[in-house]
Amino acid sequence: MTYCLGLLTHQGLVLASDSRTNAGVDQVNVCRKMHPFVADGRAFCLLTSGSLSISQSVVTLLRRDSDAGSGLAAAPTLYDAARVVGDQVRRLSALDRDHLERDQIPFNINLLLGGQIRGEPPGLYLIYPQGNPIRATEDSPYLQIGEAKYGRPILDRGIRFHLTTLEEATKYALISIDSTMRSNVSVGPPIDLMVIKAGDFRVSRYRRFTDKDPDLQRIRFQWEHALRKAVLELPDVAFEEPPEGGP
Amino acid sequence: MTYCLGLLTHQGLVLASDSRTNAGVDQVNVCRKMHPFVADGRAFCLLTSGSLSISQSVVTLLRRDSDAGSGLAAAPTLYDAARVVGDQVRRLSALDRDHLERDQIPFNINLLLGGQIRGEPPGLYLIYPQGNPIRATEDSPYLQIGEAKYGRPILDRGIRFHLTTLEEATKYALISIDSTMRSNVSVGPPIDLMVIKAGDFRVSRYRRFTDKDPDLQRIRFQWEHALRKAVLELPDVAFEEPPEGGP
Repeated sequence: MTYCLGLLTHQGLVLASDSRTNAGVDQVNVCRKMHPFVADGRAFCLLTSGSLSISQSVVTLLRRDSDAGSGLAAAPTLYDAARVVGDQVRRLSALDRDHLERDQIPFNINLLLGGQIRGEPPGLYLIYPQGNPIRATEDSPYLQIGEAKYGRPILDRGIRFHLTTLEEATKYALISIDSTMRSNVSVGPPIDLMVIKAGDFRVSRYRRFTDKDPDLQRIRFQWEHALRKAVLELPDVAFEEPPEGGP
Repeated sequence: MTYCLGLLTHQGLVLASDSRTNAGVDQVNVCRKMHPFVADGRAFCLLTSGSLSISQSVVTLLRRDSDAGSGLAAAPTLYDAARVVGDQVRRLSALDRDHLERDQIPFNINLLLGGQIRGEPPGLYLIYPQGNPIRATEDSPYLQIGEAKYGRPILDRGIRFHLTTLEEATKYALISIDSTMRSNVSVGPPIDLMVIKAGDFRVSRYRRFTDKDPDLQRIRFQWEHALRKAVLELPDVAFEEPPEGGP
């Protein structure tokens, strides 16, 4: 399994991913799911979930085109860039899908593309296995792929497009991924964290956290402590007297 | 969808459930999923998820037997009581399963049974659609059925069998359900909350929270505020300078 997320705020983007891949419980590996594409006046971050074979092929072909100055390096808008990614997914589908499905292996890939092209505000897209995109909006300022449920409540409570700063958003992203790792063993470290600041057109900040990273451990400890304290400080639940024979 | 949970601590049990049932988006109803069974020297709470028809049948037949002094009213231990529930599930399976599967409707029911019989400590079981039970332990002191993922991280951080009091556990249960309702519209109010204190052999405390309940709104508001504050107070994430060309 995988968990990747992108947060879009008025200041730019925060992107984060875990690094665990597995083909059954006895083949667990570390694999980077975060792929930056930077060129003059444009910066993207692509996050992948799903079949490792399909993900690697999509990234390889996108990189080849981009290095040759086409594809992501030439898309006039971020919407077009998301379409470039979707077209690559469809090309892979034409290449591999029948061969996979013949053995009951689903054609499974989801991607997040966050970034900015000069002349536009930053944006964030999710590209489905069918190749079609949806985008984050001010009302729904984050997108997730993979094992998304455990890490969602904290985002629903906290992320607000116009108010959340990039500094805060990095903390929300870390907590969201760390909570998921704790509840689901198929999502695992290292955690990759990237910031693309509006108007920067480059990877503004990047960090990889291993599981033993002292900063991550400090954040984790402090978070758990703060959560428990917050629960303790909630008002006690007042109970009615139960009716005879129970409710 | 449904979300029910049971928390087992050294002081007894906290059980909670939402009340939303739906058959498609245009048939959404309120339905109690929490069913107490109390008799001399024994108190149980049964929580149901899955097909409403199967759940209702199971509860109806268990109630009929219990009122006649057999079934849950006669099981010598909590393990036997869980087996009584499982037997009822298997009876329903024999009655309905073929007819459902003929129309591609899965035989879908999961149940939680928490409670205590005089002479034993309190306990908590999950009964699967196949009728077999598993029980909560000191290391895994909670069980969930239905839409379990959103509400799990807070339990993983907080519930400890030997340390968590029943007062704290009621708050964790409320937060866990409320977070799920916020992230998944198919889980909805009212929330039923029940406490069975060790050695009490009755419904010790019960409360139903509608969505507009002022206590629930206060808890919700304070929780969201505390979470945001806790994120803000985390240490800032220190970033490395990104290598040329990105990571």
